[in-house]
Order: sequence, then C-alpha cells, then structure tokens
Amino acid sequence: MSKTKKNSSALSEKDGIDAPPNLNKQSAERLKKNRQKKRTTQDLIHGILAGDKTALSRGITLIESTAAKHQENAKQLIEACLPHANRSVRIGITGVPGVGKSTFIEQFGSLLVSEEKKVAVLAVDPSSSLSHGSILGDKTRMEALVKEDNAFIRPSASGESLGGVARKTREAIILCEAAGFDIIIIETVGVGQSETAVHSMTDFFLLLKLAGAGDELQGIKRGIMEMADAIVINKADGDNIKAAKLAKTEFNRALHLYPAKASNWTPKTLTCSALTNEGISDVWELIQSYLNSTKDSGYFSEKRREQNKFWLLQTIESELKQSFYSNPIIKKELKTQLELINTNKTSPFEAANYLLSLS
Amino acid sequence: MSKTKKNSSALSEKDGIDAPPNLNKQSAERLKKNRQKKRTTQDLIHGILAGDKTALSRGITLIESTAAKHQENAKQLIEACLPHANRSVRIGITGVPGVGKSTFIEQFGSLLVSEEKKVAVLAVDPSSSLSHGSILGDKTRMEALVKEDNAFIRPSASGESLGGVARKTREAIILCEAAGFDIIIIETVGVGQSETAVHSMTDFFLLLKLAGAGDELQGIKRGIMEMADAIVINKADGDNIKAAKLAKTEFNRALHLYPAKASNWTPKTLTCSALTNEGISDVWELIQSYLNSTKDSGYFSEKRREQNKFWLLQTIESELKQSFYSNPIIKKELKTQLELINTNKTSPFEAANYLLSLS
Repeated sequence: MSKTKKNSSALSEKDGIDAPPNLNKQSAERLKKNRQKKRTTQDLIHGILAGDKTALSRGITLIESTAAKHQENAKQLIEACLPHANRSVRIGITGVPGVGKSTFIEQFGSLLVSEEKKVAVLAVDPSSSLSHGSILGDKTRMEALVKEDNAFIRPSASGESLGGVARKTREAIILCEAAGFDIIIIETVGVGQSETAVHSMTDFFLLLKLAGAGDELQGIKRGIMEMADAIVINKADGDNIKAAKLAKTEFNRALHLYPAKASNWTPKTLTCSALTNEGISDVWELIQSYLNSTKDSGYFSEKRREQNKFWLLQTIESELKQSFYSNPIIKKELKTQLELINTNKTSPFEAANYLLSLS
Repeated sequence: MSKTKKNSSALSEKDGIDAPPNLNKQSAERLKKNRQKKRTTQDLIHGILAGDKTALSRGITLIESTAAKHQENAKQLIEACLPHANRSVRIGITGVPGVGKSTFIEQFGSLLVSEEKKVAVLAVDPSSSLSHGSILGDKTRMEALVKEDNAFIRPSASGESLGGVARKTREAIILCEAAGFDIIIIETVGVGQSETAVHSMTDFFLLLKLAGAGDELQGIKRGIMEMADAIVINKADGDNIKAAKLAKTEFNRALHLYPAKASNWTPKTLTCSALTNEGISDVWELIQSYLNSTKDSGYFSEKRREQNKFWLLQTIESELKQSFYSNPIIKKELKTQLELINTNKTSPFEAANYLLSLS
C-alpha cells in the first residue's frame, strides 16, 4: 500500500514535512530530522525526474500546501524541476457540466496514450474549494485512462482565490513536464473566470459544447468563444447527429464575427462523440495542425513568453493590491471614504490620494 | 474679447495661475500675489456656481493642467463644486469616425435645449493627445449648438494616459454639474478603450452606427455592443432607409444574444437621421424611459455608487502599479527576471516574489 493511498490529501512525516515542533526534542534530533527532510525533498525531485507518478503526486501536494513550513521545500522542488519543464503541449479544455468533459478527456487521452504519448490531466476549479475536489471525487471518472501507465490524473487544486488556484496549477504543470509528460490537459468547468486563467497557461484552448434546441449561441459567454482555438460539439451520435451538424454551422458563423487572432489561426468547429469515439482523432489532428503552424511561425514560443510575462505581472499586481487592501488602517478608512464620496464630500480621486497617503 | 478666447489652452496670470517664479520679486509682492491667487480661485468657484460658461471653461482648463502648482487650486475648485454635482443625467455617445456623431449631437443637443435643458458636451479621446483637440478643431462642428446660451461644448481632454484623460473628464463633469448643466454628453470615438472609461462614468450609453453593406456585425467590438443601452443607426435617410431598417433588425438579433443587464433594461435599436432630424426625439424618449425605469428601481443611484467605487479602486490600483514599476531598481530587475523566466531559471511566481522584496 503506497503512502499516497493511505493519506492522499496531507503529507505524512516521512514525505519530508515535519510534524508540529515538539519542544522536548533534543537539538541533535532536530538536526537529524532536517537532514532527513532535505533528503526526502531530494528523493521527491529524483522521483519526479524519473517519471514516478507517486512522487509527482506527492510533489503536487507539497506545492499545493498552504502551510508556511512547506514553502521552502516547494520552492526547491520547483527550482529543480524548472530546467526540465516547458517541453509539453498544454491543452485547455472547458465546457459546462453535462457536456461530457470527462468522457471526452478519457477518449482523447486514451488516443494520445495509444500514440505513445504521456498524458497528464489537471483540473482548475476554484469553486470546488467548497466540495474539495468533487470534480474528480467520483471514482468512475476516467476509469480507463486512470489505469494507463502513461496517464496521470490529478483532481482540481482547491484554494480560496482563483489566483491561488491558478498559481498551483501553473506549478503543477512544471512538475508534470519535469516528470516527462508530453501532453498536459488542463480542464475547467466553463462557468466562471477560470477559463481566462486556463487560457493564459495553455497553448491550445478547446471549448466543448452540446447541440441544443434552437439558438445555439444563447447564453454563451462571448469571452470564452473568443478564446477558443476550436469548438467541439460533443454527443454527436444517434438522434443528435443532425442537431450537432446544425450547431456546427451556427458556431462557425459566430466565429467568423470575431477578429483574426494574433496566432493567425482561424478557430475551427468539429463534431464528435466521446461515446462512440467518432471524431476524437480529428480533434487531435486539428490540434497538431495548430501546433505545426504556430511552431513554424514562432507564435508558439512567443505566446509562452507572453504567458510568462502575464503571470509575472499578474502576481506582482495582485500582491500589491492584496498588501494594500489588507492593511487594517486602509480597510477602515476605505469604508469612510466611500461614504464621503457617495455624499459628495470628496471625489474618488481625492479619496484615492488620501488612502494612498496612509499606506 | 474674453480671456478664454485670447488664450484658450493655457491660463493667463489673471486666471489665478502665477507665472514662473521671478527670484527678484519682493516677498511682499509674492504675498499680495498669493492673496490674488486665492481670490481668483474663489472667483472661479463663484462664476461656475453662477453658471458662467467662461468660468466653467477656465475651471476645466485648471483641472486639466498637469502643472504641480495648479493642483492645489484645482483641488479647492473640485471640493467647492462637489456639493452641487451629481444632479445631471450623463449620456455616453460613441461611434467610429464618419458615423455622424457631431451632427447627431448637434441635433440631439438642440432638441434638449429647446426643452429648456442645459446641455454640456465633453469629449474623451486619448488619441487626440497627438493632434491636441483635433476632434473639435474644425469650427464648423456643432455650429448651431455652440451658439446656444444653454449649451457648453468642450474639446477633448488630452493626456498621456487614458486614466489621466478619464480622471479629467470625471472632474469636468463635476464642474459642469455645479454650473447647472442638466445633461452631460460624453462623446468618444469608438476605436479604443476609451468606451469602457466613458461607460463607467455615464448613466446611459449610446452606440451610434451606420447601415453598411452585408454583415452589419463584422468587425464590431463585442465589448462595446455589450455596454450599449441603445444602438442608434444614423443616416437613415434617402436611399439609405432600407439598409438602415435591415441593420436595425440585425443589431436587434445580435443584442438578444447577450445576457440580461443588471439594470433589467433591454437594449433597444433605433434608426435616425441627424440630417433630416428624423428619429432624434425618439432617442430622447427612449433615454427618458430608461431613466424612469432605472430611477424607479433604484438602479440609477446604485450604478453611480458602483461607478464611484470603481474610480476609487481604479485610481488606487493604477497608482500602486505606477509607483512600483517606475522604481528604477524594479525597472532594471524586471528585465533580468523576465530573461531568467524565459530560460527556465526561475518561475514567474518566484520572480514576482523577488521583485516585490526589492520595493
């Protein structure tokens, strides 16, 4: 029985994470322990670089930990993995619940594995912080894929803020890449802002849709449509085939209303059935043709550089805001100033200057 | 000949703004001058509150000044005007060049004046910082409206950043309202990001369009469509009437794809001809019905409070970023860290932490 099975959401002492300090311990023992801790982080690094899925899983748990005492180990781990990262293709997949994401990813992942690829599936789902990983909670999900040696499936990172979740996912990608995974699939539920986060950490963004009755575009988030490199209409099987084809036409028409992308790639619409496995290989062919065209043009690397810059600036800016607004004096005065603004006693600009002068 | 005519873009000494300090001057003279300065800012305030358009114009020039020595006077002026502000209806009008914005605003403004309204027209056009006010540079623009006692037309604020321009426009609104203007029209060229700024400082947002050949939606910015409370298709006259009606249908269809607005208002599409004055009063009726419905529901005030908060937070956050990134150490190290990220020597998150530790 492996350690991760025994305790999958917390790291045991042997995993390099020590228990709360016991004041009765001798310093000699503590020293020994520190050495041990160092050795186990090294073990984790070696395990990940050797492609060991148990080590990868433990590594992700370590970077997901919010405990201050794990931060240094996590940092070491990421630094050791970074030189081996950046070599995969990162595919973002989004779609509302019920669209058949799991079945699609199971089929799609199995196809990739059959082509000798190593496939990692990560999920971004900030809302699951409530249900803590419910997205993969049911064991029936991706049953076949999960058994494959060359597949790694990780439940969604949970966290209080999307920024936190996004950071953990970005770092999990680094670990997966260092463990030799070729294709990283980042899955998200198409209901929140997480799509933008996923879009900004992937090379190709796929929107999974269903054919519905009537107006296909009703209620769709324009932002998501605009980000998509492909729209795949799932469940195009049985009685649904005709509706799926109609939906394809309508989405194609809608996609043409959008301005050309920086990638010079024209987003495509496909139909597929994850149930009958029809059209799944077409999706992979489409992605490959995207990869060829953007790698040739240099856009692929350019986009990754842009994404790095985005995350750097994003982290800085959210940290600047965070440290400003969490200041207790600001918290209190912000309320007062808002009231003064709303009663025409000050302007938003004067109030801002005043608040900034307090920090 | 009024002072503003003589020198419309800079304030003369008599306007309360002193010339570059002359070191030979006696301190007694300086004291006298300070008293004079104080008096003239007071004069400006009295003039504006009395509805004097020359004073209003000079007041706006004062708040638009980037000179540090004018800031204190500008602050006094705004503080004095604030209790008299917030009483107008603020209408944002956008549309690409050639759509006939000037003619439309001239007709629309004249209608409002004929209904005993006082109308101020301000323009937001960050790009005009190059041509410095070219948007109203030609004197033929709004020829009839400009002659009306109850109309005030102000060329676009110019500035280096959209944030700066937006701030000045927000403050110009306060001055116009204090001067008793009932309707403030904020005009912007629908080509940049300025629409979002204008949208977030107005009560009603109107998108002016032309009927074109073929696909009306081609190339239109979704963001702008989404912000619009009404789309008005201008130049619906002569041979163009049929095309305008078709465009109306197409825009209506497109508007229905968007989710319901927080205002509970369903955006409407109208046609008009600023040339023949056809349909102009319908636009005003539509706006009035919007005002009635949102004032009844409380959304009108709620939106203004939200806008105040938006501008407060926006100003704080842009200032936080500005002061971080303008730090010479950060400027230098940011480049280095980006290179380290792109060569996999560090992660965006580690780099962000490092940069934050330097500030």
